Amino acid sequence: MGLDYRVRCVPDGLITDRRRTVQVLDCTIRDGGICNDWFFDKPLVRSVFEALAAAGVDLMEIGYQTAAGVHPNGAVGPWKYCREEDLLDVVRPSGMKLAAMVDMGRFRPEDLRPKRDSVIDVLRVATYARDAAAAVDLLHAAQELGYDVHCNVMAVTTCNPQEVDQFLAILHDSRVPNVAVVDSFGAMYPHHVRYLIRKYKNWLRSDQKVGVHLHNNQQTAFANAIAAIDEGVDFVDASITGMGRGAGNVPLELLLMYLDDPKHDPRPVLELGPTFIELRNSLKWGYQLPYAITGWLNLHPKAGIDRLKLGNFEYAGFWDTLTANRPRPRHHRPEPG
Amino acid sequence: MGLDYRVRCVPDGLITDRRRTVQVLDCTIRDGGICNDWFFDKPLVRSVFEALAAAGVDLMEIGYQTAAGVHPNGAVGPWKYCREEDLLDVVRPSGMKLAAMVDMGRFRPEDLRPKRDSVIDVLRVATYARDAAAAVDLLHAAQELGYDVHCNVMAVTTCNPQEVDQFLAILHDSRVPNVAVVDSFGAMYPHHVRYLIRKYKNWLRSDQKVGVHLHNNQQTAFANAIAAIDEGVDFVDASITGMGRGAGNVPLELLLMYLDDPKHDPRPVLELGPTFIELRNSLKWGYQLPYAITGWLNLHPKAGIDRLKLGNFEYAGFWDTLTANRPRPRHHRPEPG
Repeated sequence: MGLDYRVRCVPDGLITDRRRTVQVLDCTIRDGGICNDWFFDKPLVRSVFEALAAAGVDLMEIGYQTAAGVHPNGAVGPWKYCREEDLLDVVRPSGMKLAAMVDMGRFRPEDLRPKRDSVIDVLRVATYARDAAAAVDLLHAAQELGYDVHCNVMAVTTCNPQEVDQFLAILHDSRVPNVAVVDSFGAMYPHHVRYLIRKYKNWLRSDQKVGVHLHNNQQTAFANAIAAIDEGVDFVDASITGMGRGAGNVPLELLLMYLDDPKHDPRPVLELGPTFIELRNSLKWGYQLPYAITGWLNLHPKAGIDRLKLGNFEYAGFWDTLTANRPRPRHHRPEPG
Repeated sequence: MGLDYRVRCVPDGLITDRRRTVQVLDCTIRDGGICNDWFFDKPLVRSVFEALAAAGVDLMEIGYQTAAGVHPNGAVGPWKYCREEDLLDVVRPSGMKLAAMVDMGRFRPEDLRPKRDSVIDVLRVATYARDAAAAVDLLHAAQELGYDVHCNVMAVTTCNPQEVDQFLAILHDSRVPNVAVVDSFGAMYPHHVRYLIRKYKNWLRSDQKVGVHLHNNQQTAFANAIAAIDEGVDFVDASITGMGRGAGNVPLELLLMYLDDPKHDPRPVLELGPTFIELRNSLKWGYQLPYAITGWLNLHPKAGIDRLKLGNFEYAGFWDTLTANRPRPRHHRPEPG
């Protein structure tokens, strides 16, 4: 029996060899852009692109594609649109694929440009469960134009099991090859992640891949990613220093160290550390008590973000407001099976 | 089958019922004191005591006991000594037990005062593996004076398996009733924690309890606590907002929400949130890239803490320095079993 070369007191065979095959998707600019309305300047986006390519990241999600007119002029920066001329200013051919996200309701099939006219390789559609069928139509249209496509069904923690069954049946019957388990509110513990990945993999076809997009409200995002890799997910979303809405995402540097694979190098990401820690000091993503509370209560973090922006730090009052009308937990031992 | 009342799409029977029996040990003043050299004022310590008692915390570790003369006069605050007159100013009889930690080499059996002269119920000895036998002597002496005692063998991640066997054999043959798995460097992933808890429980007698003290360098402390509870540990250390050396500890508020038990109430802890977030803004515990690097490399965080204090944010340079002379990881699939 070999030993873990880091933690020598533990056998090395206990860690999953799925670390060697999982793909890494960086969403720093796309999800991190929620913190600054996508006003990243081009040198920064270029340096992120170069760092991710050097780090061996498989897929960079560089922003959203959004229909014209959705946002007032000047309200959002260029990476909410991902216009081709902006993309061409910051990327170059590399081994790393490029993705853009589209939000259902803010993008129509007729807004798609053919893949041959774009450096974008992958379109990811973010949808709620109720719009899964329409999302599949959009994804099929994107596929016909030449894109690889992913379906991210958001806020699955708010669905009941039958609603999950329904959208997984729709996705099973689709040509969509990639589906993500999305913990939009940071509500999940590792056992939730394991259960849902097994459920997604059981419902979907064996040629459909499963990924995870996890939020860090309860400081579980990275450990949930580890659980997901154990369960055999095909790709994991992460962002540099965890930059993202509210409590943020899986920190890319932690994920790359964990994967510990010659094809993934944390160093280029660490080189961007000073830039991102400075951004974090002004934009303030990361662990905060209101995000812990909304995560635990399985609620959107918006109310917490708004309170912190207003300088309202009465956390116990926030707890009282949010728990006042909620059903009390059932305080008994869980029933078997 | 019932459903999780928070994350409705997941069956509730997947979570361990060990949540209902695990004990919570708060180390805010003891471990958090590393951030401010134990200069907490008495009203703060009193408010922490009252909040923890109201939250249903089982055990409050209120500081260190240290032999006179170990520190220069005025170098450390009162909670590095836990003199009886200071303790009596901040605590009152309650259902919560009080603990103090002693460091091997900074406290001798002759420094012990009898339990009947102290409000302290529990002495926890922090030792390195090599001093386990001497630690047991000190713990036996404390036991004879009337204390409940715990042995925390620090930095177990730096031991080889035979060294772990050796100190566990010593503890097995002792009268010490409580032993903690201690991840001093925040080096562990959940699979390490699970393995070590199984190992400790297999080596120790069935009447000896096992706990965990976890650090958050890689944002795994809370998820490691969840894994530990799954594995049936008897107590878990945590601190308010995770206050502690470097990246800090398991945040108590997250643990209490997870336990979700009428005997544990997160609200009194959240009431202290504003005080501790203000402390965090000046003392700056929590996730930082140098702590992630030392955690991953299984090194003491001191080098990272020193660099941050000096305002040195060259994370890639730190990575280069620390990785230069280390053995390269073995980049192959783990061998079976």
